[in-house]
Amino acid sequence: MHNSAHKRPAQPAQGRHSGSVGQLDLPTPYLLFLGDVTEAGYAKTAFGLRDWAPDKCVGEYALPGATVSADLPRLSPTDAAAQGAKALVIGIANTGGVLAPSWIPALLEALDVGLDVISGMHSRLGDHPLLRERAERLGRRLIDVRRPPAGIPIATGLKRSGMRLLTVGTDCALGKKYTALAIARGFSERGLTAEFRATGQTGIMIAGSGMPMDAVVADFAAGAAELLSPDTDPGHWDVIEGQGSILHPAYSGVSLALLHGSQPDVIVVCHDTSRAMLLGHEPFPVPGVGEVIDLTIRLGQRVNPAIRCGGVTINTSALDPDAAAVLLDREASRLGLPVADPMRGGDRFARLLDACLA
Amino acid sequence: MHNSAHKRPAQPAQGRHSGSVGQLDLPTPYLLFLGDVTEAGYAKTAFGLRDWAPDKCVGEYALPGATVSADLPRLSPTDAAAQGAKALVIGIANTGGVLAPSWIPALLEALDVGLDVISGMHSRLGDHPLLRERAERLGRRLIDVRRPPAGIPIATGLKRSGMRLLTVGTDCALGKKYTALAIARGFSERGLTAEFRATGQTGIMIAGSGMPMDAVVADFAAGAAELLSPDTDPGHWDVIEGQGSILHPAYSGVSLALLHGSQPDVIVVCHDTSRAMLLGHEPFPVPGVGEVIDLTIRLGQRVNPAIRCGGVTINTSALDPDAAAVLLDREASRLGLPVADPMRGGDRFARLLDACLA
Repeated sequence: MHNSAHKRPAQPAQGRHSGSVGQLDLPTPYLLFLGDVTEAGYAKTAFGLRDWAPDKCVGEYALPGATVSADLPRLSPTDAAAQGAKALVIGIANTGGVLAPSWIPALLEALDVGLDVISGMHSRLGDHPLLRERAERLGRRLIDVRRPPAGIPIATGLKRSGMRLLTVGTDCALGKKYTALAIARGFSERGLTAEFRATGQTGIMIAGSGMPMDAVVADFAAGAAELLSPDTDPGHWDVIEGQGSILHPAYSGVSLALLHGSQPDVIVVCHDTSRAMLLGHEPFPVPGVGEVIDLTIRLGQRVNPAIRCGGVTINTSALDPDAAAVLLDREASRLGLPVADPMRGGDRFARLLDACLA
Repeated sequence: MHNSAHKRPAQPAQGRHSGSVGQLDLPTPYLLFLGDVTEAGYAKTAFGLRDWAPDKCVGEYALPGATVSADLPRLSPTDAAAQGAKALVIGIANTGGVLAPSWIPALLEALDVGLDVISGMHSRLGDHPLLRERAERLGRRLIDVRRPPAGIPIATGLKRSGMRLLTVGTDCALGKKYTALAIARGFSERGLTAEFRATGQTGIMIAGSGMPMDAVVADFAAGAAELLSPDTDPGHWDVIEGQGSILHPAYSGVSLALLHGSQPDVIVVCHDTSRAMLLGHEPFPVPGVGEVIDLTIRLGQRVNPAIRCGGVTINTSALDPDAAAVLLDREASRLGLPVADPMRGGDRFARLLDACLA
């Protein structure tokens, strides 16, 4: 950067996308592709879509040998297209994020019958010669949701209209996406206009649009977050999926760019009391919720002096209901804030929503 | 990010570089190309190289019509090659960062006589068909220093051996590079082994190597900073050029990734008391030095509990010596820290070096 910050051109094009400048925009509804998966853990993307975007899922399609199901109607690509599907989504997140050779015939079949193909893998669909040739010949789209759109500008930091809530975390992978989805749903159920804003690959597939924050060139990351939640009606809530943690040694830069670009009015901190050390960065202890709140408020005030913490969510899936209730109430008392598990809902989550809207 | 953080592959290749995994590495010495420049402000890159890397500069080469000189021997590409030059460096930073058509014959001439071509412009050398064809045919390198090397890993956060100093700022473009260069020189003059570690295009040309932090994909930015200052001898100092500001609404993510990836033992805060508002982001006031120190220490303790502030540098080039002395002493008294203008040197800068090494 920065000698001529105001003259910096936008981030150059990196992929092939539907929109001009802006977030990704995906063709829906989807046929979920399960490949030959035999471990439920690898089908997380499909499960997330089924749980949070059932209206976007017409069915599932697996290869012989697959033993995992998302409990959706089993449809061939031809049948799915006949029922209105616009794209086949690779619903698998395998180790390494690579396309398996055994999947290629199914992906070609999808292209043949009129579906686009959407992937959140690291390896790019268009790098596979057969897929690229077929898609080009038939005029189909190969969409890698990990590739940011072209034309992302440098952030301005200027205040935008409408309300914004950002989920932040004490670590990666402890519920920022699920918390944001549950809050957006809770706001909608109260009659507010609210939209989930996705920042990672699974969230983008669920929302049908979004910004893959971790793939944006660093200088443009805050600008990407600004694009993701543009000016809107004064009473509208954008509920933005957080990434990483402000105290994560590898991803803190993404978290801070997302904080400054999101300029949230409210943050909700996502935590897992059963996790002592950072996932995949075990020498580092998970930081305290209070420390993350304090730093996030101080840094976030730079772009929104009204920023405040609406509460804390904790993943209690490993506990029985009584033990979960004890933990949530103990933490609420300790922190002086509403604490809830959004997947359990109930009064605790209602009080958290109240506090976010107060 | 993050569900399988420990399984993330490295950032894919983006450019053509000399090294395999690691920082950029540039062929030196240089012939500085001044184009047809008539305003000294646009020749900043050439002046920076002349001031800080005179041993890397065999001469300068300008087109007819140029009125600006770096006061180096005027050499044709042929003569420069005969005197050992390995590359022609575009020493110009014009508005928009684009290659002027009038420069192309000179760049082709440089390739013809055996020089590589190095650019810090936004537009890529290899995107120009004539340059690309000529370089490929002759086996020369076209090096865009704004393109990061391939294979940058996700940061680990693990402590590395050796000592590190990072310059940080209250804004962009107020002396972080010059401060780092002056401190590295000051350490060397005291008999320490010290190395300037560049993070922006001009710094990279001065050092002959470095990491263009602002061009790295966000998820890999802290990892890029880790690559830039690897394990070294216990008494060795890496003096790392800072970027942006932890409180800059557009670039804070780069600054925090650089802080966490650099794991500095010492920070020096660079400030300009004559600047009230952020450059190019005028609605935002320049934050206070104390606030930047406090936030940087708190965030930096995550990866280096021993982090401390060695002092503050202020660009006083607009003041006469007496006024500068008054300002520097007033700020030193107010902050309780050594405050110096590294370009003025003297006792104040010596005390700042003392404090960094204390």
